[in-house]
Amino acid sequence: MSVAGRWLVDGEAGAAVPPDDRGLAYGDGLFETVAWRGGRPLRWARHMARLAEGCRRLGLPPPDAGTLLDEARRLAPAAGDAVLKIVLTRGGGGRGYAPPPAARTRRMLSVHPWPRRPAFEAGAAVVLCRTPVAVSPALAGIKHLGRAEHVLAAAELAAAGAWEGLMRDPDGWVVCGTRTNLFAVRAGVLWTPELSRSGVCGILRAEVLALARRLGIPVRVGRLSLAAVREAEELFLTNALIGILPVTRFEAHRLPVGPVARRLAAALAAEEGG
Amino acid sequence: MSVAGRWLVDGEAGAAVPPDDRGLAYGDGLFETVAWRGGRPLRWARHMARLAEGCRRLGLPPPDAGTLLDEARRLAPAAGDAVLKIVLTRGGGGRGYAPPPAARTRRMLSVHPWPRRPAFEAGAAVVLCRTPVAVSPALAGIKHLGRAEHVLAAAELAAAGAWEGLMRDPDGWVVCGTRTNLFAVRAGVLWTPELSRSGVCGILRAEVLALARRLGIPVRVGRLSLAAVREAEELFLTNALIGILPVTRFEAHRLPVGPVARRLAAALAAEEGG
Repeated sequence: MSVAGRWLVDGEAGAAVPPDDRGLAYGDGLFETVAWRGGRPLRWARHMARLAEGCRRLGLPPPDAGTLLDEARRLAPAAGDAVLKIVLTRGGGGRGYAPPPAARTRRMLSVHPWPRRPAFEAGAAVVLCRTPVAVSPALAGIKHLGRAEHVLAAAELAAAGAWEGLMRDPDGWVVCGTRTNLFAVRAGVLWTPELSRSGVCGILRAEVLALARRLGIPVRVGRLSLAAVREAEELFLTNALIGILPVTRFEAHRLPVGPVARRLAAALAAEEGG
Repeated sequence: MSVAGRWLVDGEAGAAVPPDDRGLAYGDGLFETVAWRGGRPLRWARHMARLAEGCRRLGLPPPDAGTLLDEARRLAPAAGDAVLKIVLTRGGGGRGYAPPPAARTRRMLSVHPWPRRPAFEAGAAVVLCRTPVAVSPALAGIKHLGRAEHVLAAAELAAAGAWEGLMRDPDGWVVCGTRTNLFAVRAGVLWTPELSRSGVCGILRAEVLALARRLGIPVRVGRLSLAAVREAEELFLTNALIGILPVTRFEAHRLPVGPVARRLAAALAAEEGG
């Protein structure tokens, strides 16, 4: 079934957006990419919480999660798998950065085919991107619409024959993949980059951190150097669509699918099944 | 005459944009804000050069300046003043950061009322914004669509009763106003922040730097601290719509309209008239 071209704008099927929409004009909005499996959204509450936090940070009214779920059900398959994308913008209203006092949020939902990903045991080939990711304390953590850096980094991957690429901030700290969060195991400790200045706080990242703590795996959220990534015993990637995906090649270096990734993936699967 | 709601999308009047447009989805595009005075665009060649440079940086095909000018003339007043806004995006095409190989650029032109600005002699009241501007070497200088930081900074101004606010990068260096470039005169030398890591290389900024060099005014493009801004003999702002606008109040501190701003504004007026 083709799902291309299926979308709702403020509840209206196939409606289009005027070019004065502030999401288009200024990246003045947010998005979520939700895994829709077997006719229902995974981790809906976490997605809604991140969206609400993004709205708080941008000064937008909080979303109505019930309306979003109703509209998602109109679009997404009743029993199948898909990717549900939700975009919220500050709506229309003239030219100029200053938010109009009467701005009305615009919501756009669309469904897309479930993506292909490498098998867990095969893992992902990962390279280092040249494109840096911004240091932006005002926007770090939230999933705002301004992603041109990620586009440029993603364009590097095809040429490199890699599934994902790691992005560093301008000071050289490793922050994230182009569309994933990164975890590294070093001396039995699970590390992930802290994201107060760069990157997006992924839904799966939060889930994995919570699972690790529950399982008694030592966790550190901090700055991760490229040397630390290169010396890691295990590397894995997370996002809402792939779950946990081991890195089995980083640059020229091969890595095993490690015990920490296996343990967390099993716990995640048990949780999703439950 | 109301000019709200007048726009062209790929040459089609009033056409709307599908929500999968990559400008909307990812800020994957560029814009220009052009002063349209007396029926013609000011500094068209400079705008087209910046747009072409932005396209080169984002890996978009260069714009057809002739088509853009033809479409601008369809929309903008034949003899009056307006603001012409041009948006170029990487077009539509599915979900995911990676640019589709067959992406076709989408162009959107719109006209807007000529804005009010303080008189040159009155100058602008300026505050310091809390919202920092990103350090983003991949995007610095070009006028890409991801402007949520500028939106947040602009939202601070109304509350402060100021016309403009200065933004600093996360290291505290003063980079720009929310919609202007900044110049400071210190010991007779004209300073403006260098923009290789943050900010937008304004059309008027380039024009003022060229004029200053022609007039023999010593120029320095470098890092500008907040202390240096606070101690400046003159401060002024530039953008394509306001030209040169002196800062007559910065925080609680009053400044005169200074001789360097006067000299440059006179040279600019002579050039525009010629």
